[in-house]
Amino acid sequence: MKRVGIIVKPHKAEARTVLKDLLAWLDGRGVQALLDEETAALVGAPGSHPKAKLPELVDLLLVLGGDGTLLSVARLVGARDVPILGVNLGALGFLTEVTLDELYSTLEGVLRGTYEVTRRILLSAAVRRAGEPVADYVALNDAVIHKSDLARIIELETYIDGQYVTTFRADGLIISTPTGSTAYCLSAGGPIVYPTLGALVVAPICPHALTVRPLVIPDTATVKMVQASEGESAYLTLDGQVGFTLHHRDVIEVGRSDHTIALIKVPGKSYFQVLRAKFKWGER
Amino acid sequence: MKRVGIIVKPHKAEARTVLKDLLAWLDGRGVQALLDEETAALVGAPGSHPKAKLPELVDLLLVLGGDGTLLSVARLVGARDVPILGVNLGALGFLTEVTLDELYSTLEGVLRGTYEVTRRILLSAAVRRAGEPVADYVALNDAVIHKSDLARIIELETYIDGQYVTTFRADGLIISTPTGSTAYCLSAGGPIVYPTLGALVVAPICPHALTVRPLVIPDTATVKMVQASEGESAYLTLDGQVGFTLHHRDVIEVGRSDHTIALIKVPGKSYFQVLRAKFKWGER
Amino acid sequence: MKRVGIIVKPHKAEARTVLKDLLAWLDGRGVQALLDEETAALVGAPGSHPKAKLPELVDLLLVLGGDGTLLSVARLVGARDVPILGVNLGALGFLTEVTLDELYSTLEGVLRGTYEVTRRILLSAAVRRAGEPVADYVALNDAVIHKSDLARIIELETYIDGQYVTTFRADGLIISTPTGSTAYCLSAGGPIVYPTLGALVVAPICPHALTVRPLVIPDTATVKMVQASEGESAYLTLDGQVGFTLHHRDVIEVGRSDHTIALIKVPGKSYFQVLRAKFKWGER
Amino acid sequence: MKRVGIIVKPHKAEARTVLKDLLAWLDGRGVQALLDEETAALVGAPGSHPKAKLPELVDLLLVLGGDGTLLSVARLVGARDVPILGVNLGALGFLTEVTLDELYSTLEGVLRGTYEVTRRILLSAAVRRAGEPVADYVALNDAVIHKSDLARIIELETYIDGQYVTTFRADGLIISTPTGSTAYCLSAGGPIVYPTLGALVVAPICPHALTVRPLVIPDTATVKMVQASEGESAYLTLDGQVGFTLHHRDVIEVGRSDHTIALIKVPGKSYFQVLRAKFKWGER
Repeated sequence: MKRVGIIVKPHKAEARTVLKDLLAWLDGRGVQALLDEETAALVGAPGSHPKAKLPELVDLLLVLGGDGTLLSVARLVGARDVPILGVNLGALGFLTEVTLDELYSTLEGVLRGTYEVTRRILLSAAVRRAGEPVADYVALNDAVIHKSDLARIIELETYIDGQYVTTFRADGLIISTPTGSTAYCLSAGGPIVYPTLGALVVAPICPHALTVRPLVIPDTATVKMVQASEGESAYLTLDGQVGFTLHHRDVIEVGRSDHTIALIKVPGKSYFQVLRAKFKWGER
Repeated sequence: MKRVGIIVKPHKAEARTVLKDLLAWLDGRGVQALLDEETAALVGAPGSHPKAKLPELVDLLLVLGGDGTLLSVARLVGARDVPILGVNLGALGFLTEVTLDELYSTLEGVLRGTYEVTRRILLSAAVRRAGEPVADYVALNDAVIHKSDLARIIELETYIDGQYVTTFRADGLIISTPTGSTAYCLSAGGPIVYPTLGALVVAPICPHALTVRPLVIPDTATVKMVQASEGESAYLTLDGQVGFTLHHRDVIEVGRSDHTIALIKVPGKSYFQVLRAKFKWGER
Repeated sequence: MKRVGIIVKPHKAEARTVLKDLLAWLDGRGVQALLDEETAALVGAPGSHPKAKLPELVDLLLVLGGDGTLLSVARLVGARDVPILGVNLGALGFLTEVTLDELYSTLEGVLRGTYEVTRRILLSAAVRRAGEPVADYVALNDAVIHKSDLARIIELETYIDGQYVTTFRADGLIISTPTGSTAYCLSAGGPIVYPTLGALVVAPICPHALTVRPLVIPDTATVKMVQASEGESAYLTLDGQVGFTLHHRDVIEVGRSDHTIALIKVPGKSYFQVLRAKFKWGER
Repeated sequence: MKRVGIIVKPHKAEARTVLKDLLAWLDGRGVQALLDEETAALVGAPGSHPKAKLPELVDLLLVLGGDGTLLSVARLVGARDVPILGVNLGALGFLTEVTLDELYSTLEGVLRGTYEVTRRILLSAAVRRAGEPVADYVALNDAVIHKSDLARIIELETYIDGQYVTTFRADGLIISTPTGSTAYCLSAGGPIVYPTLGALVVAPICPHALTVRPLVIPDTATVKMVQASEGESAYLTLDGQVGFTLHHRDVIEVGRSDHTIALIKVPGKSYFQVLRAKFKWGER
């Protein structure tokens, strides 16, 4: 670990102080820190790199912020497979499970090379219009197809590995990774999926029919959806951060990406520990 | 009952035939039929009336179509309090519970004056912007506040009769009448409310927090919501048919309207009979 | 307010100290305290009264404990209509919303006669076997009919005000007051009902059919259920505290009792404040 | 395929006729039919075999009945791995997906050896009391731990692969295979799991805390539960058919069995086709 890329969510109050301490700590250990533009601006550092370039330049990506910041970084990594260390500023995150208290002990393990990672799948989402590819995305949490503002409902003809499932009539449909199962998918009634299970969740949002329920399928499956609501537009959203307008008869295919990401864990902290803390399980 | 207003959903295949038979039947009984423009066009009838004027001109409104058609008529009635007879063309509705088979026997009762009605409350929804009224609506099923396409979430500071409830962080919030409880509200996890109970349902759509659940409150209460998501627009929708764009800090107040509507029932058909048929209760 | 009945949940650690302070405080104001047996034993007080007799002897019932303790007291009050002040030892309750910090200020208001009460309905539940009455109960939260241990399912033919609803095939059925809506009924998927709304919730427990959902009905309605699972026994439970074994074809009728109870409130504390605290609404 | 074991649910009206036809059909093709006692009695056949012995004696088990009949047969198969053909008499089943109309065409494929199977995992459930094994079961759908009749709640300290999850406070806890996900687990709010996904569902029944939700975990995991409700008994049930009384501090371990079963499919009938038919998806 010679070079560490650092990406900070700049609006957090404690971001500047934490970043300064971190830069000094890394410098003291002979590790080079590479910052993206916003992060460099925060401490007035001289050089900086485009955020999208960082993964190619470093051995580790250190994200200081919330789950939203980490989601946006995860989609940049691609085939580069550089590990990501997510540190939360403020509230504990599902992805940024490392607290400031655990930051340096975890980093020491990383520099020694004795760290644990949890490998997470990414989604690939592609849109074809009249047979031609018009959009191609990656997501860590979820790909969501949602009705537009003025529509009452969306109709999505849905196929899994070529087999017709049903035509969902709903506010929308979520295709979620296990990682995303504790995010939007949970609000829509989906289950919590253990992060390393090879599965996807297909969860309708406010389905018109009460017997339509979340489906859990192998992550080797491809989910194909045809936007079947005539005269209505709809939206495809990735991780709630990137959007694309869908037309009538657009075909959306979502499946596991060829790439995965490696999240660095706090040694000995189990997934259930994070669930208990986030969901206040056991408190009365 | 001297004059009957007839409003037909024109796209239904059987609409023209049913309407012709109905006009002949009414004519044979000396009852005058008044049609709105679309309905008149369907049978090439000479005169017609604007749909919004019909309630003032007639003793009965006869709606041939689905629940959507009846919802749009219900919002026109206002203080006029003319009874509505909803007849479904096709699938049984919650509001258009009279089938074609039951149409003439029910109408005969109506002409004799021996009919039953179920009285339903309407919602009144008003928007104030910087203290000034900017919109005012009526709804039979529900008033829904929903995030816009690109927003991830809406934040709605909510007060019931002046008491702070919570700030909902969700896709949206539904205020439903008992009548609307079997419509969108049910898809969002709300209960089925007996139609004559004096209650409103306040149901969050995909709430961020799992402990936030549908609330049932007296229909004498006023629900005040402040659109608190900075820099995000949101929408108010009435019965899923009429929409209004909300700005940051807009104040939306929803409560029972001063008016109610009177739906004519099939004599002896209970509400539970309609529920069983629509939800296929008891089938295996 | 000359005579106050005190009922303490004896197992709570702080019960003895709180009780001693309270007795001294009341004595200093010339108010006579009457204790039930368990409460008297806790402080070695000379005289005591059967718990079931206390309501007739006092002007106020003061319950120190949790919601469970208050439930058992509420069922004793009957026609006597003596107000109840519920003080929680430990975790905030829905019924015992007064904390130890608020105890004496609330009590002072009560002695001055300037207190607020929230009036709650009670349920009456009666069982008939072969036409003969065999059991008769009262409940504040809920009447629950549940399958027995070895049964797979219960079948309950259900009528509301004489109209057939459906035959529920489920683990059981809950008839809940608004007060009980935040207890067991909520775990079964029921809504939160404002405590003064004149309503009952009829909520199936793990229903076999996915379209069977909680119903909210007027509290003037009577719910009649016939235990229709052949060869299977079932149980009726009141407030989760009192049980009765049901036979095949037993008829259970549940409706609003003729009596209500009066719970003394902390002045100015709204119902939503209690909900926010109990459900951690607004915390992240 | 020389020998076919036949097990019929005897109470079904059409059972006798169907069985007679089937025996003639098999005889005409030189296939020997072996019947269990109840099935033999139905047609007055001379010889019969104990149901539990049949799997060892035959090349195919043919079950005529409902899902319940097939569940009881599945638990008998053990290491023998004889394929099962489930034919429903009456309502379509999830397990008995072959209809009478499809019986002979499917059987012909089986005799030719050109059939498709779907392989399903079984659960193994073991109970230890004071360290000693006291019970050991197999299940195809689910292992359920449920509070006893008089208990208000069960407390289950739960560990997955040795890691503490939480102490569930609920009516009970379901450990379901993908096969069982459309049975009891669905009524408790669980997702539908594709039958060949290597997963288990851990779903609480009416959990006290609203943030406790169904978990989907790898089927390589072991779920260990400690019955932690003092002074209360509880029950372990397998497939809703076999029960065992649990004591305080009993340890229940549930995981994938070493054996699987092979269900014969109707060629070309997809899992989603069965879901659509059973749940009436797409009907209005």
